[in-house]
Amino acid sequence: MKNFRNQQQRPKKNTLIIGRQAIIAALQSGKQLERIYMQATVHGDVIDTIKQLAEKYLVPINKVPVEKLNSLNVSNHEGCIAVISKIQYQNLQDVISFVVEKGETPLFIILDGITDIRNIGAIARSAYSFGVHGIIIPDKGVGALNEDAIITSAGALEKIAVCRVNSLMKAVDELHLNGIKVFASEMTAAKKVFEIDMKEPCAIVLGGEEHGVYPALMKICDEQFQIPMPGDFESLNVSVANGVILYEAMKQRMLG
Amino acid sequence: MKNFRNQQQRPKKNTLIIGRQAIIAALQSGKQLERIYMQATVHGDVIDTIKQLAEKYLVPINKVPVEKLNSLNVSNHEGCIAVISKIQYQNLQDVISFVVEKGETPLFIILDGITDIRNIGAIARSAYSFGVHGIIIPDKGVGALNEDAIITSAGALEKIAVCRVNSLMKAVDELHLNGIKVFASEMTAAKKVFEIDMKEPCAIVLGGEEHGVYPALMKICDEQFQIPMPGDFESLNVSVANGVILYEAMKQRMLG
Repeated sequence: MKNFRNQQQRPKKNTLIIGRQAIIAALQSGKQLERIYMQATVHGDVIDTIKQLAEKYLVPINKVPVEKLNSLNVSNHEGCIAVISKIQYQNLQDVISFVVEKGETPLFIILDGITDIRNIGAIARSAYSFGVHGIIIPDKGVGALNEDAIITSAGALEKIAVCRVNSLMKAVDELHLNGIKVFASEMTAAKKVFEIDMKEPCAIVLGGEEHGVYPALMKICDEQFQIPMPGDFESLNVSVANGVILYEAMKQRMLG
Repeated sequence: MKNFRNQQQRPKKNTLIIGRQAIIAALQSGKQLERIYMQATVHGDVIDTIKQLAEKYLVPINKVPVEKLNSLNVSNHEGCIAVISKIQYQNLQDVISFVVEKGETPLFIILDGITDIRNIGAIARSAYSFGVHGIIIPDKGVGALNEDAIITSAGALEKIAVCRVNSLMKAVDELHLNGIKVFASEMTAAKKVFEIDMKEPCAIVLGGEEHGVYPALMKICDEQFQIPMPGDFESLNVSVANGVILYEAMKQRMLG
């Protein structure tokens, strides 16, 4: 029974890439990796190469004690094990170009400080239902988008474009360069969500429930809005808030 | 460690009422009970009295093997243990009268076939945020609204009126008698949610994700509506759907 549970919680062997050269080859061939677990004490030229390639391809590296790697029950890991992505991450500019070429009006979601993968799954589910073109997430601070996230999303995470970026600030710059406005949800904003024009190309920044949107990111957003609520109990779960905002956007676009 | 976990999962002793006469006294004094666990094999006049009182006060009875009662680690249970409610259930007519007397326009939610207490908690959280006056739930088929449900609701379940009824059909009749219209969410409905007038006194029926609203209940509703979605992936979680519908109602009432 114990073995069965361990197998369930652990990445399956065929979702892993084991050893330094295998990981370098995978990165160079464009294989999508969710993250690399690297023994905290390893170093040298080959390790530096892995680090450079990981940065280039936006793959997070988790430094771990050797026991973590040994617990994955593989031999010859040489201090490095990579987990193959369940999600096919896509390049933000590619997605924008694709949407524009199709003649559609871009609609994106940016997740800032939303670390719970079940919340991300729930957000993806509504996003895909309401016709969002892509979800932008940072490459750090977010849990691996694993089977649990995909189940919570009812499969949407495998269908919607997910763009993993190493800086949300730079992603907003890229959106701006493409003529896409960026709106942020903020409880104290003067404007209400239905006073924002979401018929134009836009992206919505959602912040974590505790800390909200990161101030520097908030600063470069074009407008802020709040979801108005009567009474003093203003407490929507972030995936419900996401659903409400996307409903408003969909309705504006539908009614013209 | 095992004992600690067992204590966590089990109702605490001070939330229980143990034994036949104690349960009769609690019911007669108006104490709110979540449910009564009754040994499947007990019978007699006293048991009949408990059953009659439970029906009168809408307390579900779960027939269980004696081992279930013994596992609660109390002595002298005489085949009957009741769990005290964490929620103060309220009478539907009382809530309606209270709202009308305050001069507000009634807004209710009816949960039909939504059995997952975390979904109920999440629904209560948005409902209370958007100013819903009461949540109507059936007394059968719903899990006990325990600590988990209250946590998921961010405390809303302790603040919003929850009306437990023995028939949703009768509850709709009661709403109708009070001039409150009843609208049901249904994926194939012709009308869209924003085409329904929710400025008037109304209640919204939400069905379970798998089976939707019970057909006989659907029949006596005044109107049906759907949340429109572009594309073929129409899959909102019920608590997100609830948030969207209540946002639409709030917006209509706010903008007049």
